[in-house]
Amino acid sequence: MVNLRIPGPIPVNDDILEAMGTPMINHRGAEFKEILYRTTDRLKKVFSTRNDVYIITGSGTSAMEAAVVNTLSPGDKAINATVGVFGNRFGIISERYGVDLVSLEFPFGSDVDLDILRNCLNANPDAKAVMVTHNETSTGVTNNLEAIASVVKKEYDKLILVDGISSVCSLPLETDEWELDVVATASQKGWMLPPGLAFISFSERAWEAHSQSNMPRFYLDMAEYKRYYEIGQPPFTPSVSCMFALDLALQQIIDEGMGSIFERHASIGRYTRDGITKLGLRIFPVSDSIASNTCTAVTVPEGLDGSKLMSKMREDHQVVLAGGQASLNGKIFRLGHMGTTKESDIQEALDALEIVLPEIGFRGT
Amino acid sequence: MVNLRIPGPIPVNDDILEAMGTPMINHRGAEFKEILYRTTDRLKKVFSTRNDVYIITGSGTSAMEAAVVNTLSPGDKAINATVGVFGNRFGIISERYGVDLVSLEFPFGSDVDLDILRNCLNANPDAKAVMVTHNETSTGVTNNLEAIASVVKKEYDKLILVDGISSVCSLPLETDEWELDVVATASQKGWMLPPGLAFISFSERAWEAHSQSNMPRFYLDMAEYKRYYEIGQPPFTPSVSCMFALDLALQQIIDEGMGSIFERHASIGRYTRDGITKLGLRIFPVSDSIASNTCTAVTVPEGLDGSKLMSKMREDHQVVLAGGQASLNGKIFRLGHMGTTKESDIQEALDALEIVLPEIGFRGT
Repeated sequence: MVNLRIPGPIPVNDDILEAMGTPMINHRGAEFKEILYRTTDRLKKVFSTRNDVYIITGSGTSAMEAAVVNTLSPGDKAINATVGVFGNRFGIISERYGVDLVSLEFPFGSDVDLDILRNCLNANPDAKAVMVTHNETSTGVTNNLEAIASVVKKEYDKLILVDGISSVCSLPLETDEWELDVVATASQKGWMLPPGLAFISFSERAWEAHSQSNMPRFYLDMAEYKRYYEIGQPPFTPSVSCMFALDLALQQIIDEGMGSIFERHASIGRYTRDGITKLGLRIFPVSDSIASNTCTAVTVPEGLDGSKLMSKMREDHQVVLAGGQASLNGKIFRLGHMGTTKESDIQEALDALEIVLPEIGFRGT
Repeated sequence: MVNLRIPGPIPVNDDILEAMGTPMINHRGAEFKEILYRTTDRLKKVFSTRNDVYIITGSGTSAMEAAVVNTLSPGDKAINATVGVFGNRFGIISERYGVDLVSLEFPFGSDVDLDILRNCLNANPDAKAVMVTHNETSTGVTNNLEAIASVVKKEYDKLILVDGISSVCSLPLETDEWELDVVATASQKGWMLPPGLAFISFSERAWEAHSQSNMPRFYLDMAEYKRYYEIGQPPFTPSVSCMFALDLALQQIIDEGMGSIFERHASIGRYTRDGITKLGLRIFPVSDSIASNTCTAVTVPEGLDGSKLMSKMREDHQVVLAGGQASLNGKIFRLGHMGTTKESDIQEALDALEIVLPEIGFRGT
């Protein structure tokens, strides 16, 4: 059995996989309406919000794009506070749509520095929005979203668009309390589901921005979703299979309770980092306090071949790790621990690393 | 057991449903690469093309939007030859993106008239593209796409963008022979799959248009797909479950052969229309020769309550039909027969109709 330890898709439990095989129903019928309303209500609980939440058939990127095209207009200035590859993606999407982008880039491995963010907001008083990644899987860093949101909302009163793809349902995130205007996430992360769906929350302030926004959109136009949800239907034919699975997963999530889920993630993150450190390896983030509890990024020791490490892990031990992306290619490897990851799953990966590391020339610290 | 007779999602066979429950794999790994290349090769066989074919995680509408945003620019003139609700959608999407739209609307129940199309092309020599629906499920009409494409390509040399959502893999469609530049389709139709994926073909001419197009796009940018497919990866996390199911379905489709699949659809379409006519009901399309072999639209007889008919069919006989959309609401009902629909499935629906019709006051012709 393969131990899939990438930061999504995550391994999916058998009962959820079974739900993926449920026979089709009419997506415009009464049964689907019930599922749509029930899942939406429960999604709101997980997002900790009374805002609208919508379900998109697409990847997390589609929801990031939805965040941009539903709130901004070409020429609008927006600050993108980025700490990695997925943060950069927010900027790329915005520029494609003609946003006047202020790219506030922090070094890979660091989190968003609040004073630098404040300086940037001071220098750009005409910025309409701030985009930020809650949990950056490319570097294994979790931003202090509560603090960032406090600066953006309470100190500067800007729109905040959050990539919560690998955080919502795994890490504490309080949409209403933190006044997050748009939060985007995707099913193949903490939701314990296969990929195929993205979820997005939309505050009243986001709807106001929508009414002023003239970016072109149709498939990702949240107004289409709003209009159809009122009659209990999706605007476009959804991934019905994923909806069945989502319905079951959300029941389990609500039954377990968010507190327990957050604790499990904190605990497995700690367990992973401790194990990695004991092997003599270094965590990539510059400090333990910002290390992610959904994805651990590990520095490939100087002189070692990261791709060889990953292929030996996969071929000899059936442990699938993720490599570094963009400029981090070969410099780090990443180990995902979202959803129902157990300590034994991580220990198996650590045990395999202990065998593989000396084989590729690692001599310890 | 419910007899789901809407024009998609279609009932999905057990082996395909089972494939939907396959455990997750790394979408950037070797196993997924094999699946991506194998399914893409087979998709090309079904599309009958050597053009590029890409797999989008999204609904059919996302692929229609992709057709528009990858080939046109704001201000470009395009003719939308529409015969129904889904045809109209092509126009709505185009206008959202600033296309200078020439809406060539044919009455619901009719197909595209070639001379009227020629007149429109003569009157708009600056039009860059023609958009057209191959099979319009909202009215149960199949356009003569071969003849339309011949006019658009051979006589006027324009770009042709085809909504083949409910036709590809059910009705004969020759992408290369008919010189179709973009063809969009979706998994929950003739492909025998659950919804969740859309497929799109892209001709060389479409790529030329892409290089001139400046519409904003990211999730639906085919250039992202092209770039990633070269290394055997999807640009964004795909619906891995649907990919497993697609892989199996395509194997079955190739094994059966397109000739047999087209014959089956022609035969079940004929069977359905004959049965409907024998009940004393009228097919909605203005002539039998343009009636669709994937979805039959039936006129609700004068004075009868169409929604009552559908609810009695559903509640008393577990046969789920689709109603009319937009201005056809209450005026027609629709019966899907895509994929592996058997005569017994249709007969069951016809038998139920025979009981329900007199119950709601139908006195025959």
